[in-house]
Amino acid sequence: MLVLVANLGSTSFKYRLFEMTDDGAIDDIQNARCLAKGAVERIGDAQSKCTVEIGDWSNELTMSVPDHGVAVQACLDQLTDPENGAIEDASQVAAIGFKAVHGGRLSGVFVVDDQVLDAMAEMNAAAPAHNPPYIAAMKTLQARFPDLPLVAAFETDFHQTIPAARKEYAIPRQWADEFHIRKWGFHGASHRYIAFRSAEILGRQDARVISCHLGGSSSITAIENRQSVQTTMGMTPQTGLPQNNRVGDFDPFALPLILQRTGLSLDEALQELASKGGLLGLSNRSGDIRDVEQAASEGDSQSQLALDVFIEEIRRHLGGMLVALGGADAIVFTGGIGENDTLVRGRVCAGLEQLGIVVDPAANEGLRDRTNDLGEASFHAGDSKTQLWVIPTNEEVIVARQTLHALKHS
Amino acid sequence: MLVLVANLGSTSFKYRLFEMTDDGAIDDIQNARCLAKGAVERIGDAQSKCTVEIGDWSNELTMSVPDHGVAVQACLDQLTDPENGAIEDASQVAAIGFKAVHGGRLSGVFVVDDQVLDAMAEMNAAAPAHNPPYIAAMKTLQARFPDLPLVAAFETDFHQTIPAARKEYAIPRQWADEFHIRKWGFHGASHRYIAFRSAEILGRQDARVISCHLGGSSSITAIENRQSVQTTMGMTPQTGLPQNNRVGDFDPFALPLILQRTGLSLDEALQELASKGGLLGLSNRSGDIRDVEQAASEGDSQSQLALDVFIEEIRRHLGGMLVALGGADAIVFTGGIGENDTLVRGRVCAGLEQLGIVVDPAANEGLRDRTNDLGEASFHAGDSKTQLWVIPTNEEVIVARQTLHALKHS
Repeated sequence: MLVLVANLGSTSFKYRLFEMTDDGAIDDIQNARCLAKGAVERIGDAQSKCTVEIGDWSNELTMSVPDHGVAVQACLDQLTDPENGAIEDASQVAAIGFKAVHGGRLSGVFVVDDQVLDAMAEMNAAAPAHNPPYIAAMKTLQARFPDLPLVAAFETDFHQTIPAARKEYAIPRQWADEFHIRKWGFHGASHRYIAFRSAEILGRQDARVISCHLGGSSSITAIENRQSVQTTMGMTPQTGLPQNNRVGDFDPFALPLILQRTGLSLDEALQELASKGGLLGLSNRSGDIRDVEQAASEGDSQSQLALDVFIEEIRRHLGGMLVALGGADAIVFTGGIGENDTLVRGRVCAGLEQLGIVVDPAANEGLRDRTNDLGEASFHAGDSKTQLWVIPTNEEVIVARQTLHALKHS
Repeated sequence: MLVLVANLGSTSFKYRLFEMTDDGAIDDIQNARCLAKGAVERIGDAQSKCTVEIGDWSNELTMSVPDHGVAVQACLDQLTDPENGAIEDASQVAAIGFKAVHGGRLSGVFVVDDQVLDAMAEMNAAAPAHNPPYIAAMKTLQARFPDLPLVAAFETDFHQTIPAARKEYAIPRQWADEFHIRKWGFHGASHRYIAFRSAEILGRQDARVISCHLGGSSSITAIENRQSVQTTMGMTPQTGLPQNNRVGDFDPFALPLILQRTGLSLDEALQELASKGGLLGLSNRSGDIRDVEQAASEGDSQSQLALDVFIEEIRRHLGGMLVALGGADAIVFTGGIGENDTLVRGRVCAGLEQLGIVVDPAANEGLRDRTNDLGEASFHAGDSKTQLWVIPTNEEVIVARQTLHALKHS
């Protein structure tokens, strides 16, 4: 079965085309062959760019793409290129799978229908940057491709196994029950991939693993028996670790003072916290950790502070996961920062020998030279009770497997 | 020197009278003899109750006490009772020391003047339940006793040693700098007492100690070299652990959804979170953990959830402290719950053997039978790398020592 896995932005559409030949167990992550990948950028501009890569062949077109429906049509046209295409006919694509963000009361994998879109719309106030463009794009696609199932794999899905005691806020019960306010957690596809893949590497289904997804947005998840049992993001993807330009954990009771002193409305203040906070807010310079580290190394004290806060917040949450699991068999770093930032990995794991976590500094420094063909390598010392790994994540393969599973079982 | 240590409520005044005979090192906690304690309740009512205990003598008066000035006068009258009083003349009292909550940019110990009151007033929006009644009472006392120094020992004082990397939020720098929005931390007098006392018990000034102050309001502090290096409360005392009726950590980005669905204003919603959250909100029954545990033991699922969330949040934050310290030499439980709740202590410390923390369950259960005359006892197993202690806190002696120090050095 062929599945297109989509990554939607408000003005972009990126995808990978997967072929899967089985009945759809979600954890069979080795069974998903990527046939093609492509993207449409600047949807809505007069000159949109459509790119595709199929094996060694690549193609780039510039054309007018007014909406996501036209974008998908352009992608299908490229995929069915008579000479170099990956497939003969667009009808071979069985579904488009989406990594959708917040379904509120709907947490799982669903063929998109009006009920699913309604549940997403209920969460617009909690995910204002994510849900409205997804809903709009899905409606456009439904109208243009009425026979092509759209499958929404919500990022909250993986975290459904978190016990209530680690998921509920200490708020009035009515608000939790009626407004679905709890710690939903996000980055589900990534943490699920790490759960499955680390179990393969460790050769144990019951391993206790801490998955540190560190990138433009970051979260940490505690995994036991390949299931999420605690995570750092909350009701919205704004809480938890500081992000590139989003605040992370913050005291809501500071808001009245901010409104009083700035004259901003609540929505405006939250918008500032979600766009001018994080590494950007702390460093007063950049939300890109590479810029921040560079400036810090050149003596910029605000950038040094930004880096230090980021690392201390990772460590603080890592500690929470260690206690939740009663110690970890492995800590896994993934995401752009987790996979590539030697300094962050080293500092996050430093000084934890008494807790059974011992870094091999040389292995961390030279990690890139030792990776296998999936880009994986470990960097713990021989006497470390907890293994330390870099495992590049693969969210798309999880969404492909989830989409296949949903089609086979719906 | 005689110092009255006051605990102010909006309609109450409680105090202890301390005698100290030295030059005022704050950490000389054994040098503060409590001569008397007393209280005035229902200030503003026609029938206020004034009580005092001096040695074996106690006295109770009912009279009209319109304000805190009259309350203090009534207390001084009782203390100078010709027959049973603790002192001969009210002028022997050198100062009144206050455990003040939030001074914002002023964090430390100060003789109260207009500048101190102004700094407190700036934080009214962040501590609406605490700062306004303190300011009002202090002004009343200044007017009535112009020659009696009032000393404000801010609860944030002990946490000034927390490094910036664990104190700054990832917010726009301007908000941090201009509005003094950072993790100030509270319960400073209690955590400082635990820092000093645990160092005495362990016989080490450089011990790494995690102080769990669990009571009507709760916070955890990581201590190194008798200094705070991380704490759970933030800009306001509302964040961190769930409290009896206050929410604890919460996602500010959930607020727009709450306002949209309830029709409440921001101030009203925060007021609900600060009065109908915590154990009360979760259990839908009571903010008193004894009621919650009783109901849970009788099968009430919401009360069980409240108890479970409270414990999981303590564990989550405890983990953060363990990583901050790189492991702990001791974990100390104090406050009404920490000192008395065997179940909470046991569950907080359970299953952490891999992290070097091993409970002796029998010692925990039978702790009350083994305490010394300060009410202290340990409950760790012989092979635990981390000692586990109950140490009853003594905030008043810290404020007495701080007040003495401020008078000697101002």
